Amino acid sequence: MRVFVPFDATAPKTRLSPVLDAGERAAFARAMLEDVLEAVEVAGGEPTVLATDSIDAPAPVTVDDRPLDDAVDDRLADAERAVAIVVADLPLATPAALERLFGADGEVVLAPGRGGGTNAIVARRPDFRVDYHDASIRDHRAIAEGIGASVHEVDSYRLGTDVDEPADLAEVLLHGDGGAATWLRDRGFELAIEGGRVGVRR
Amino acid sequence: MRVFVPFDATAPKTRLSPVLDAGERAAFARAMLEDVLEAVEVAGGEPTVLATDSIDAPAPVTVDDRPLDDAVDDRLADAERAVAIVVADLPLATPAALERLFGADGEVVLAPGRGGGTNAIVARRPDFRVDYHDASIRDHRAIAEGIGASVHEVDSYRLGTDVDEPADLAEVLLHGDGGAATWLRDRGFELAIEGGRVGVRR
Repeated sequence: MRVFVPFDATAPKTRLSPVLDAGERAAFARAMLEDVLEAVEVAGGEPTVLATDSIDAPAPVTVDDRPLDDAVDDRLADAERAVAIVVADLPLATPAALERLFGADGEVVLAPGRGGGTNAIVARRPDFRVDYHDASIRDHRAIAEGIGASVHEVDSYRLGTDVDEPADLAEVLLHGDGGAATWLRDRGFELAIEGGRVGVRR
Repeated sequence: MRVFVPFDATAPKTRLSPVLDAGERAAFARAMLEDVLEAVEVAGGEPTVLATDSIDAPAPVTVDDRPLDDAVDDRLADAERAVAIVVADLPLATPAALERLFGADGEVVLAPGRGGGTNAIVARRPDFRVDYHDASIRDHRAIAEGIGASVHEVDSYRLGTDVDEPADLAEVLLHGDGGAATWLRDRGFELAIEGGRVGVRR
């Protein structure tokens, strides 16, 4: 399956600025992207990075500097067969989780992300469109319903765990074993256990 | 499968106090418990509430007022066959997600929860023990390894979403369709969309 992985090549992961400086955010975002690309490939997908600017990556790169929704919509409209969109900040994504995504029935398959996001999509309808703003999972359900497409939601913690905020780094340390997890550990991040949910400290 | 659902009958869900008063927290906790019990039954499990005090519930109740780990450990030690422990604050748990849990291979099956928790366990070894404090998923992996038990982790967003904090209520509104979601909507909770992950307002 053709898999597009949108990537902000200019100022990624700004919400991690309380714990990572700009250079670190760029490097960590790249580490997460590479984890995702590798998992997609092992799961049998054919990844293409859909980047806002030219980057070196271990997969083909298509540059499209328009807003995310426009860039993704064009790939959906051009698709003659199924196409997947997988966000780049899923360092817990495993081949097994992605195989469940790619293999799920449904003209539109959605993997919800924490806080209303949509972390992965498979579209088997060229008339499906995306709206990644705000509670996108609700919008994507409505858009699919509006075109009469059958919807399936994939129930995956790993695909649901996008990394945007400092607390999310704990998830990477707890459950990750790829390059992003190694990157964090090498920079001195470790779990901070203070009752309730764990966080990170450095 | 025998399924124990631990329940704090005295002061549940204290971390929701910024948005719910004590009476509301008790009622909401009960609504979540009832959602979990129903999903367990539909999935073919035989639920027992393991409560800190006597309560009315639509399932058998065993009262054990000791600390959670001790109460659970006794049920594990007594089990002649597989036994499951499913926390009571999983209003997104569906029969399908619980069937994946109950049917997973492994002498110890773990469903991780957000922030290092362990939201569900299947133990097929009477010598497995629990430690729900701090990053319990790491402890449970280590305990299983220590007794030489095979471990499988179930990759489920629905089982991973325990409801402890106000932001978690957004997950219930976004993905729930049981009694807990209805309870929240009836009390005027709705999504608050402010960029980034969504929250709730009332």
